Amino acid sequence: MGLLVVGSLGLDTVITPFDKVEDALGGSAVYISLASSYFSGPVYMVGVVGDDFPNSYMKMLENHNVDLEGLQIVEGGKTFRWSGKYHYDLNERDTLLTELNVFKDFDPIIPPKISKSRFVCLGNIDPVLQIRVLDQMEDPQFVVCDTMNYWIEGKRDDLLKLLKRVNVLIINDSEARLLANEPNLIKAAKHIRELGPEFLIIKKGEHGALLFAEDTIFSAPAYPLEMIYDPTGAGDTFAGGFVGYLHKTQDLSTENMKKAVVYGSALASFCVEKFSTKALEELNYLRVQDRYREFLNLSKFDA
Amino acid sequence: MGLLVVGSLGLDTVITPFDKVEDALGGSAVYISLASSYFSGPVYMVGVVGDDFPNSYMKMLENHNVDLEGLQIVEGGKTFRWSGKYHYDLNERDTLLTELNVFKDFDPIIPPKISKSRFVCLGNIDPVLQIRVLDQMEDPQFVVCDTMNYWIEGKRDDLLKLLKRVNVLIINDSEARLLANEPNLIKAAKHIRELGPEFLIIKKGEHGALLFAEDTIFSAPAYPLEMIYDPTGAGDTFAGGFVGYLHKTQDLSTENMKKAVVYGSALASFCVEKFSTKALEELNYLRVQDRYREFLNLSKFDA
Repeated sequence: MGLLVVGSLGLDTVITPFDKVEDALGGSAVYISLASSYFSGPVYMVGVVGDDFPNSYMKMLENHNVDLEGLQIVEGGKTFRWSGKYHYDLNERDTLLTELNVFKDFDPIIPPKISKSRFVCLGNIDPVLQIRVLDQMEDPQFVVCDTMNYWIEGKRDDLLKLLKRVNVLIINDSEARLLANEPNLIKAAKHIRELGPEFLIIKKGEHGALLFAEDTIFSAPAYPLEMIYDPTGAGDTFAGGFVGYLHKTQDLSTENMKKAVVYGSALASFCVEKFSTKALEELNYLRVQDRYREFLNLSKFDA
Repeated sequence: MGLLVVGSLGLDTVITPFDKVEDALGGSAVYISLASSYFSGPVYMVGVVGDDFPNSYMKMLENHNVDLEGLQIVEGGKTFRWSGKYHYDLNERDTLLTELNVFKDFDPIIPPKISKSRFVCLGNIDPVLQIRVLDQMEDPQFVVCDTMNYWIEGKRDDLLKLLKRVNVLIINDSEARLLANEPNLIKAAKHIRELGPEFLIIKKGEHGALLFAEDTIFSAPAYPLEMIYDPTGAGDTFAGGFVGYLHKTQDLSTENMKKAVVYGSALASFCVEKFSTKALEELNYLRVQDRYREFLNLSKFDA
């Protein structure tokens, strides 16, 4: 059984203190799919682009065993575009431009072959669309979902409906506080899990991630990077590494879920080392394994 | 050989969203000494108070095996007072009042017995005073030092002189960025260690702490607390637990230093559970050990 990834594909123009790239490959579905491709294939990607979407990007995705049967290409349409500028410390960014283009009328249609997937990763898009995806799945066993402040504030009712059908919610700390309306993260996590998700992951950027599973809390460290070139896509890459590892191992125990969080963190630490998807394109499984071991050394101490 | 702790003793008026306490026991020397008393004694405390300093506080400290021979009591003088109000999420606070009082003319004098101590913990006071303490020590083998933004900005030259004589510097993330003039924490840590300290600990509050030792970085998690009553003194308590454990074990290896960071974190996690020093006063070593094991479970994952 494959892994279904739904989300955005875009052309990103990104400015950091170090450099600028224009119309680089981006979007949540892209980062998630590329990251999960290092563990398990094929990855079925569902999304939409215009006919201006470079053929070279599609080739690269296919070379990573990403199945594009579910990718809609709108004739005469323009691909989703986003532009952002990062501040000097790379922790904050300003959005300079958001052009929805073909994404505005996106209706995710899941081809029959793909609707049999047991693992689903819902990238950050309108919760109404995320629900529409789940409605088309034959027997989804494990649903991982991302969202953002924009939907928490603007489409809370739809999001709450969706959360009842989600196994793992992955959000960042400010989103968790907003969703639960609670400043304490541990209390916020409790509230959120009562809304549906059995597992919750709170991403904290340079401070690592927290996994809430059963009665357990697991704190994963962040990889100590001296140089971050482009934080774009790090959160999506985390989700892709996480779900890819679980799909590969087919083991949903809490202990294995901790490992998946570290694999997600490892993939995200590569993502930010180069612009756009460059670092993810060039990766290999041995380097992923090496970095996993570095995470072990980073957090291990004696009893 | 004992452990020398130098720092402030004060009467704190603290307002949090939950409660208010007036003239409660506070000050860096107090928190450090109490925390380290759970590992190793006697702890020699050097500081200054006025004759308004309640006798009950001295008794409590002595009951925790804190030696007060080096405590100066100024006849007719008023004890240092501080007042602060925490914001709703307890991550930020406003200082409402700082009355130096007897602290203004404080000249730390180290009695002969105490000057033989090999372990020294310099709480957050003027770096000129911290240097004066070191000048009086016969053969300090291991010097742990705290400082703050105020001295980094106002007394940088003195601080730089001090750092050459310090083995471990303990500061928080914003202080590290300020001291190194570098937004990336990993790079900042490199710069700071070039200034003198062989070991550096960067405290990140609810995100844990980083230890830089040899070529190693160790990331310690923070304890997931649902309720924080009063964050005052958490950083000092961390330092006290850290140096107390090292003084007890007399093992300055990197592996043992990691354990000391976790013991420091464990002590700090108790500190914030009650107002002022209350939680630290009531602790026992079994509970400290239990919490250490909880930190193990919190961060452990399989290879």
